[in-house]
Amino acid sequence: MELDHIGIAVARLDAALERWQPLLGAPHAAPEVVASNRVRVAFLSAGATHVELLEPSGEGSPLEKFLAERGEGIHHLAFRVPSVDAALAEVVARGGRVVDRAARPGARGRRVGFAHPSAFGGTLVEFVEVP
Amino acid sequence: MELDHIGIAVARLDAALERWQPLLGAPHAAPEVVASNRVRVAFLSAGATHVELLEPSGEGSPLEKFLAERGEGIHHLAFRVPSVDAALAEVVARGGRVVDRAARPGARGRRVGFAHPSAFGGTLVEFVEVP
Repeated sequence: MELDHIGIAVARLDAALERWQPLLGAPHAAPEVVASNRVRVAFLSAGATHVELLEPSGEGSPLEKFLAERGEGIHHLAFRVPSVDAALAEVVARGGRVVDRAARPGARGRRVGFAHPSAFGGTLVEFVEVP
Repeated sequence: MELDHIGIAVARLDAALERWQPLLGAPHAAPEVVASNRVRVAFLSAGATHVELLEPSGEGSPLEKFLAERGEGIHHLAFRVPSVDAALAEVVARGGRVVDRAARPGARGRRVGFAHPSAFGGTLVEFVEVP
């Protein structure tokens, strides 16, 4: 299963871009607000995979809680799958918990879905549909 | 800069392998003890990159402190560089802190070196020399 990207939680996207650009170069596109997650994101290339920098967007973003509890740092791993619905169902079939029961709209116009961190021993796993 | 692997801290390598193998398949090789870091590791493929599962090996492993404070989860990101010494020097030149001033022996017979998490806003970054 291919790694699509690594999500890194940041307090301020501008400051984070300055920090990472010496390693990874400029972002692919202007930052995008992902309304369903209340985050604003930018993607940088890292070989065949990407780093997604995420800052909270709007009141009550789930990312605010993460930042308050753990500070800035790696937030999730996202893997490419042909079907997000099937990948989530497989996690459930193995006895794992999921955040999303079915795919929903994510960044870059992709369908995405999250397993619960407990399903992978504390690592938050996202599935990204790449048909 | 290409992502070489994502390091995930785990309490027990056997249990972690069972959890990740449905997504990523079997490890490349038998687990390896990396004496310089007091960890025991296994690598799984994730497309062009890898997931490295790390468990503490021996008393006083730095990973024990991480697990006690944060629990199991994503521990570091490792990028491929032509020279670890040069990559570490660049971090220092930009005003960042480093854990290692020069390359040292890492897993898979590679030369590696770590920046300090503060250099990348809370993310522990490793450089892996791939000549």
